[in-house]
Amino acid sequence: MKMDVLTLFPEMFEGVFNHSILKRAQEKNAVSYRVTNFRDYSENKHSNVDDYPYGGGAGMVLTPQPLFSAVEDLKEGLSSEPRVILMCPQGERFTQQKAEELAKENHLIFLCGHYEGYDERVRANLVTDEISIGDFVLTGGELASMVIIDSVTRLLPEVLGNQESAPLDSFSNGLLEHPHYTRPADFRGLKVPDVLLSGDHAKIERWRREQSLKRTFERRPELLETANLSDKDRDYLRRLKESQQSSE
Amino acid sequence: MKMDVLTLFPEMFEGVFNHSILKRAQEKNAVSYRVTNFRDYSENKHSNVDDYPYGGGAGMVLTPQPLFSAVEDLKEGLSSEPRVILMCPQGERFTQQKAEELAKENHLIFLCGHYEGYDERVRANLVTDEISIGDFVLTGGELASMVIIDSVTRLLPEVLGNQESAPLDSFSNGLLEHPHYTRPADFRGLKVPDVLLSGDHAKIERWRREQSLKRTFERRPELLETANLSDKDRDYLRRLKESQQSSE
Repeated sequence: MKMDVLTLFPEMFEGVFNHSILKRAQEKNAVSYRVTNFRDYSENKHSNVDDYPYGGGAGMVLTPQPLFSAVEDLKEGLSSEPRVILMCPQGERFTQQKAEELAKENHLIFLCGHYEGYDERVRANLVTDEISIGDFVLTGGELASMVIIDSVTRLLPEVLGNQESAPLDSFSNGLLEHPHYTRPADFRGLKVPDVLLSGDHAKIERWRREQSLKRTFERRPELLETANLSDKDRDYLRRLKESQQSSE
Repeated sequence: MKMDVLTLFPEMFEGVFNHSILKRAQEKNAVSYRVTNFRDYSENKHSNVDDYPYGGGAGMVLTPQPLFSAVEDLKEGLSSEPRVILMCPQGERFTQQKAEELAKENHLIFLCGHYEGYDERVRANLVTDEISIGDFVLTGGELASMVIIDSVTRLLPEVLGNQESAPLDSFSNGLLEHPHYTRPADFRGLKVPDVLLSGDHAKIERWRREQSLKRTFERRPELLETANLSDKDRDYLRRLKESQQSSE
């Protein structure tokens, strides 16, 4: 897969693209990243990329020309249409499902604005997707695009080894993860639960499942509505609710 | 404010901390960032920071000792207790409200794991907050912590100029932003709405408000339930719903 980023701050990406999984994914030729400063495409004589908003108001607005020209240049000679993704707070909320959808594409182009509005013609006529990573204000789209790039890259075939992909399975069963413990069994008086030291694998599995159900019930109860639950799970949750009610 | 990051990949942060708003915030002494590799605190003779999970299973688990030792070292000699924030998918969902809460603190310490579980004793006995930026799988807590650091830093006094803080106001009124346009008025046949060129400021304000309501209605209708709406706004929304129903 190819991933292009259009930004006014290309240096922000160096540390992230050159370490850990993203670095390894490039070395394995699973993906190639390219970061382009769209200021280089400005036809304005001062290389400006923004201007005052029509109708007045504070803040500046990114002009359409540099972004249109940059995307057209990146698309030149391609046989298929890339997804052109605008990072913006008004966009569709990013989820694991969206990551899986994007991981099937050949080419993604991310447009990152920086504390400014986009001219609406960019939104209406240049992009295929508008994505937000959450209801909080960021300085620019750069960090949000890195988040998406990381989550999509790790889904590409052969990027992850078995060790790293294990936590994914746990997340994708629709429940929060059960607690993990490792050595020492006693750390400053804080002890590992006996069941994990018991060697009884059926008991351990059941304990983990119940802890996972309990944590989900306490922190994200809405996930239980769509999770795949057995009769035993439902029975455990019923008892959990009852014990909480009786202790109130 | 002081912000500390504990990570196994300190180099990932360089590009992000040394550009744009985060760079400027440091130059203005509004914040100081420090990134520490918690492997340096490992008392294991091979500097290991992880081990196999008790009870079996795939994946590795971060051992408690290096994280406990690192946090204790960072806290040494402090008069107040810092917030110790664990980046993890099981955590509380990050929102603008949480950013505002964290921006009032003197010292934040972020713990970033990397494709591994945390030993539960870290969660139960070392951290004050567990935060997730959304329901998607990331390789580590690093990108998530950068997102939080950016959103908190921009709320600190004197970090933002007037130009950059304007979009924040728009977001914080509880509605999605209205469209923005800048020059040229005609870009390849794509035109700026006449109202914005009219010079009639009352009309422009009304148009912007209605566009903001319309976009929120279409993309994030649940935000309308908590937004501060006038009678005029409600009337506009009623007409919008009716016109959509009649066109179905």
